[in-house]
Amino acid sequence: MTKREVNELLTQTGPGTPMGDLFRRYWIPALLASELPEPECPPVRVKLLSERMLAFRDSENRLGLIDEFCAHRGVSLWFGRNEEKGLRCPYHGWKYDVNGNCMEVPSEPAESGFCEKIKLKSYPLIERGGVLWTYMGPPEEQPPFPEYEFAMVPPEQTYMSKRIQECNWLQAMEGGIDSSHVSFLHSGALNRDPLFKGAKGNQYNLSDYQVKFEVVESDGGLLIGARRNAENGNYYWRITQYVMPCFTMIPPRGDHPVHGHFWVPIDDENCWAWSYDYHPVRALTTEERTAMEEGHGIHVKTIPGTFRPVQNKDNDYLMDRAAQKAGIHYSGIAGIGIQDASLQESMGPIVDRTKENLVSTDNGIIMARHRLRKAALALRDKHVQPPGREVEQQRVRSASLVLPPDAAFKDAAKEALIAREGVPQTSV
Amino acid sequence: MTKREVNELLTQTGPGTPMGDLFRRYWIPALLASELPEPECPPVRVKLLSERMLAFRDSENRLGLIDEFCAHRGVSLWFGRNEEKGLRCPYHGWKYDVNGNCMEVPSEPAESGFCEKIKLKSYPLIERGGVLWTYMGPPEEQPPFPEYEFAMVPPEQTYMSKRIQECNWLQAMEGGIDSSHVSFLHSGALNRDPLFKGAKGNQYNLSDYQVKFEVVESDGGLLIGARRNAENGNYYWRITQYVMPCFTMIPPRGDHPVHGHFWVPIDDENCWAWSYDYHPVRALTTEERTAMEEGHGIHVKTIPGTFRPVQNKDNDYLMDRAAQKAGIHYSGIAGIGIQDASLQESMGPIVDRTKENLVSTDNGIIMARHRLRKAALALRDKHVQPPGREVEQQRVRSASLVLPPDAAFKDAAKEALIAREGVPQTSV
Amino acid sequence: MTKREVNELLTQTGPGTPMGDLFRRYWIPALLASELPEPECPPVRVKLLSERMLAFRDSENRLGLIDEFCAHRGVSLWFGRNEEKGLRCPYHGWKYDVNGNCMEVPSEPAESGFCEKIKLKSYPLIERGGVLWTYMGPPEEQPPFPEYEFAMVPPEQTYMSKRIQECNWLQAMEGGIDSSHVSFLHSGALNRDPLFKGAKGNQYNLSDYQVKFEVVESDGGLLIGARRNAENGNYYWRITQYVMPCFTMIPPRGDHPVHGHFWVPIDDENCWAWSYDYHPVRALTTEERTAMEEGHGIHVKTIPGTFRPVQNKDNDYLMDRAAQKAGIHYSGIAGIGIQDASLQESMGPIVDRTKENLVSTDNGIIMARHRLRKAALALRDKHVQPPGREVEQQRVRSASLVLPPDAAFKDAAKEALIAREGVPQTSV
Repeated sequence: MTKREVNELLTQTGPGTPMGDLFRRYWIPALLASELPEPECPPVRVKLLSERMLAFRDSENRLGLIDEFCAHRGVSLWFGRNEEKGLRCPYHGWKYDVNGNCMEVPSEPAESGFCEKIKLKSYPLIERGGVLWTYMGPPEEQPPFPEYEFAMVPPEQTYMSKRIQECNWLQAMEGGIDSSHVSFLHSGALNRDPLFKGAKGNQYNLSDYQVKFEVVESDGGLLIGARRNAENGNYYWRITQYVMPCFTMIPPRGDHPVHGHFWVPIDDENCWAWSYDYHPVRALTTEERTAMEEGHGIHVKTIPGTFRPVQNKDNDYLMDRAAQKAGIHYSGIAGIGIQDASLQESMGPIVDRTKENLVSTDNGIIMARHRLRKAALALRDKHVQPPGREVEQQRVRSASLVLPPDAAFKDAAKEALIAREGVPQTSV
Repeated sequence: MTKREVNELLTQTGPGTPMGDLFRRYWIPALLASELPEPECPPVRVKLLSERMLAFRDSENRLGLIDEFCAHRGVSLWFGRNEEKGLRCPYHGWKYDVNGNCMEVPSEPAESGFCEKIKLKSYPLIERGGVLWTYMGPPEEQPPFPEYEFAMVPPEQTYMSKRIQECNWLQAMEGGIDSSHVSFLHSGALNRDPLFKGAKGNQYNLSDYQVKFEVVESDGGLLIGARRNAENGNYYWRITQYVMPCFTMIPPRGDHPVHGHFWVPIDDENCWAWSYDYHPVRALTTEERTAMEEGHGIHVKTIPGTFRPVQNKDNDYLMDRAAQKAGIHYSGIAGIGIQDASLQESMGPIVDRTKENLVSTDNGIIMARHRLRKAALALRDKHVQPPGREVEQQRVRSASLVLPPDAAFKDAAKEALIAREGVPQTSV
Repeated sequence: MTKREVNELLTQTGPGTPMGDLFRRYWIPALLASELPEPECPPVRVKLLSERMLAFRDSENRLGLIDEFCAHRGVSLWFGRNEEKGLRCPYHGWKYDVNGNCMEVPSEPAESGFCEKIKLKSYPLIERGGVLWTYMGPPEEQPPFPEYEFAMVPPEQTYMSKRIQECNWLQAMEGGIDSSHVSFLHSGALNRDPLFKGAKGNQYNLSDYQVKFEVVESDGGLLIGARRNAENGNYYWRITQYVMPCFTMIPPRGDHPVHGHFWVPIDDENCWAWSYDYHPVRALTTEERTAMEEGHGIHVKTIPGTFRPVQNKDNDYLMDRAAQKAGIHYSGIAGIGIQDASLQESMGPIVDRTKENLVSTDNGIIMARHRLRKAALALRDKHVQPPGREVEQQRVRSASLVLPPDAAFKDAAKEALIAREGVPQTSV
């Protein structure tokens, strides 16, 4: 059972909270690169870790993430003009560069020095793998740029989408490392979804419900091994990667692209579900990319002009009881991503973890909470940098493989769990 | 004047409140039987007394009312699969029977005994008179099944509808025992509504505004006598029944079916208005049943797929000032039920009773509050079972009749106030 | 920097607050006269200074502004019947006159004297200049009727509109005395809007951004002088009038009608933006009146049946980035009134003034806050009547004129700043 105060510690990420400070030690995805497609394009409102900010790309193609509100009298700079080398507030013409430095206060004489004293809060914004990443912590603690494999392979091998999920980040993330629900919630999808079907591993998933979990710490987070029975006394292992604080990687299926998520807090009751899909050694096919764009696999169709799913809590996720009865969609909800989101949102904005009854298949979740809490307290109390900041800790892979009964998955799959250029994923 | 703390006592019905505990000593209507029409049909979310629950009918045709949320990690069981003999959570396949007992935790070996330790909160759910009733109190205090006459006559003699009312239960219920507003608010309807018009009593209603109230305690609640002048010095009496905690019965008109309400708290700011209409000795005619279905009489047309009235506060109840001016609808709102609901909702979610100015025609309301408060405190402080739990106290009738000036209504109408099979209502 | 407690003092206007008491010493606009067009027309809900009230015009053509809720049991009198000489509650027929006096309680014998004891809160409501004005303070402190010039000229010379603005009154009002933002936010409109374009003064506005402010106290409020460079070393002066507590008057442009606003609190997070436009010496032309009705100049197109702008925060004010880029609309938002409202609402419901960085062009705002605070405290602590209540203080004009460099605007424009019948505005 999780105590109330531990639940609060784990779920609150605003400025000044221990978990908020932890998140502020990492590069986290902030926007899709396509949201800021070219110099001087419209700025975009961004809310992360309960902070309201504005992202823009200036006339020099530089990226900026600054306070949403003008330092003068608090107008939202979303209404601003993206002009030469900076963003200009439309109220009185104050202008800021991508670093939040005030470039001009038209009413004041340049020689007054007033302008130099004005600075907006700002964070670095970098582009990598189709994602704009930010680091919201102390500059002197900034880690190296992220090197997750999906962001390092050539563009034709990778795809990214994002959607809003209307619940706390942690209960969303817990779904991402919970390999046991696949046999139930997604059972209908395993043999139907174009990005999942056909893999031999699916049959192991659907035939053994008493999955055994072995969870071990990795340098950057956790390796979550889920063991099911295979033929001849062997075991089918699915090994999920968790890299702190919120990166998860689902074990692959056959030659399908590999996928997973970032779960990034917007505020304490909403989060971004980022969904990546990539193939380590080949371009995505047209069929695969189209399927991703259409909301198959772990991706979700969103309302045009927004990142809110078409299926959402206001329409009961388009629940179809007939499809539920028929087993086409196990829960009656179509789509793997929304199958997860619907249940996680149904727990309420922040689930009350004091009421849970956890079982052995929740070991990955238990260990992740433990690791997060430990790291947040070590950072707060002893200024210890948390795991997951180093690029070696990010160059990881999930894997699915059949092993003899006496093999320890961590040792047997050791090579399979490292991202190596030109080497395909290990997948059944 | 009602003190603030008394107003809170009377209006709050969540778990652990005195009035909430009082409500938890009765069978109360929870759903229409038609909401769970057959075995293995979709489960239905139910909120009562501020508790969120799920109702379902299993494959064996047994009814269950259980906690809405899975004991594992809090997913809403509304997404559950109604399978053989139980409801299965779609996340990890935990399964519950109608009593909330956990039947299966697929990830755990049956011999572990884990499953047996898991139990969801559950309440009994029984069907009677087209209504599914629940009892949310301590099992050892469960009263006999309810025997209100509308629920005991053959189905062809009775009709029930329900609607959401967006205010506290008490200000809604107070309208149900307030016989004095009929001469004003419903004056346009008395001679027009197919389920009201034509009764001789209507003329007494419309000709004497200075109604005199005599209120006496009954075994189960109150008898509220409203006296108006009739011919030759006689009095026209309308006797309303109130059975604790929230059953009210309007005095009848001619041979029209008899009707009334249950007012059941959803939470402290919303309630169910249940509306029954039945004839003690004959089948409802096709015209009558059609009129009820179309929202005439005390019934209300609701938005398809919901129980929210088509006329609601978001559209100002389709106020028609011309019809108001013409007196077709006295308040400009069409429909007896919505005439009441519109005004009661306009008082705010919980009316501030410290600001009232009560008059003699409010005596029924004053006495009902008094009786409720007394019973809630007696239950809390002395464990005294409240009135209205016994079936004899529920087998009551309202009545309308003309009496000589010296007759005490309680004595003169004594027989008319008891429900007797085969005996028609006493009605002018 | 404004301290938090000063910000609260200035922005809170509910009953019992110092600024609320200040507002309750003035006649303030409550409704457009067209909202109560004739005797016995439908009553209108009015919320002002956080009080919920009902306005109506009785059968004798008398105007009333009374408590929205019946004294009996709290029903909204909006549902009431506007009958002979009073408004009747549709629940039990209680009837009130325009002064809130109870005229009839039908259930009680007239001789009981009960009715005489019942009185609803009420405020005077008078008609002047197409506006219904109320005074919500102590009757003995009631000032003379308002004599702002727009309300005193013949009807063919004047036009009034109103709209809801979804932020605190003060940040809206501060825009009304902020002459410096015109050169930026409204720069696209100066040469395009039919009610602004063509004036010579526009060119001064658009050519000098380093406007110098001189602010002096007037008897009723402030004179805010904004100085820009003109030809030959002369200065172009724009003099804004502020009359306490919330009347502002924009300096005129050429022969265009003169305009300005009242900023009246609805509650602490919403206000009415009243917009007047009049010509001191001639009728408005058909073109001018049509332009005002269509939302040009400072007026705003509202959703039919409401006073909410068509462009509002739910649709991002119909932001047009292409028009922003082209400079057609400097901020991308069409319409002078909504250009202001969009930015002021973007600051949040009540802007946090502790975070501001004010400059010399904010002097008008700084002085207005100072004067408001001083007056509110003098009223609270010493019962000093605040400025702006006397009609002489209301008979003011704004002005725009070119002056030699050594002229003090207050002296040189002295006559121009007084409203005189038959004398045109002073305008460049």
